[in-house]
Amino acid sequence: MTFRSYMDQALEEAEAAAARGEVPVGAVLVAPDGTVVARAGNRTRELSDPTAHAEVLVIREGCKQMGSERLPGHDLYVTLEPCPMCATAISAARIARLYYGASDPKSGGVGQGPRIFSHAQCHHVPEVYDGIGAEPAEALLKTFFAARR
Amino acid sequence: MTFRSYMDQALEEAEAAAARGEVPVGAVLVAPDGTVVARAGNRTRELSDPTAHAEVLVIREGCKQMGSERLPGHDLYVTLEPCPMCATAISAARIARLYYGASDPKSGGVGQGPRIFSHAQCHHVPEVYDGIGAEPAEALLKTFFAARR
Repeated sequence: MTFRSYMDQALEEAEAAAARGEVPVGAVLVAPDGTVVARAGNRTRELSDPTAHAEVLVIREGCKQMGSERLPGHDLYVTLEPCPMCATAISAARIARLYYGASDPKSGGVGQGPRIFSHAQCHHVPEVYDGIGAEPAEALLKTFFAARR
Repeated sequence: MTFRSYMDQALEEAEAAAARGEVPVGAVLVAPDGTVVARAGNRTRELSDPTAHAEVLVIREGCKQMGSERLPGHDLYVTLEPCPMCATAISAARIARLYYGASDPKSGGVGQGPRIFSHAQCHHVPEVYDGIGAEPAEALLKTFFAARR
C-alpha cells in the first residue's frame, strides 16, 4: 500500500470520530512490514480521558500488541499535526516516520509553538512528512467546528 | 493536609516505582476539597505503555472518577518536572495548580526545552510551584540510574 492509502484510512477514522461527536482526527499505525497494526480516532469525550487522542490510542494499542513500550521501525499517519502531548509520545515510542495532513496553528506542537522535536530534551526525532491529505482533513475539522458555533 | 504531605505521598509512589524497576517518579492528584483522588508511580514497563507516566495515570484515573475530560480546581503534585507530554496533558485536563520537586534538564518540558506553558498553543496554564521536596526526589533518581550503569 502507498502512504496515501494509509492516510485515507486515517481520514476514515477522523470521519468516524466526527460522527461520534469527537474532534475529527484519525491515526493509523503501520508496522515495518506494511501491516496496519492499529487505527483510531479521537475518543476523549467517550472515554472521559484528555489523553485519548488518536495518536496516543494507536501507540498504546501497538505497544500492547508488541509487549513493549517502543515501536522501532513503525510509521504513524495522522490527519492533523500532533499536539505536543502526542508528539512527545511519538518520540518516546521511537516511531520511525510521522506523516501528517493539516497543520494546526491552534494546538500543534511539531511545526509551531513548542516544536517538540527541536529541543535537546527530545531523545528520538522521527522523520516528518507533512501536508499529505491536508485538504480533506482540514475540511472535516472546519465543518465540525462550524456546526458547533 | 499541607502541600508538603501531598508531596510526601508522591515520593512514596516514586519509591514504589523504583522497587518495581520503573523510573522513580510519583504523582498525587488532589480534589478542590483536599481529598487525594489518585496516586501513582510510573508504570511504562509494566504496562508496555510509553504514556504511562505517573502524571498521566493520575489524570486518567481522576477523569474516570469524575466522568469528565477536565479536572478544574484540582492540584497535581509530582516529584519531577513533567515532560512535555505530561505538561500538555496537565493543561488539557485544566489542572489548577502544579507542584513539582526536582528539575529535569534531561527530559523536562516546563522550565526548559519546549516550555509547554509558554506558547500560544497552550490554552490553559496552571499555577506552577517548583522545588518542593526536590532533594529526596533527586536522590531517588540518582540512586536508581547509578545502579543501572
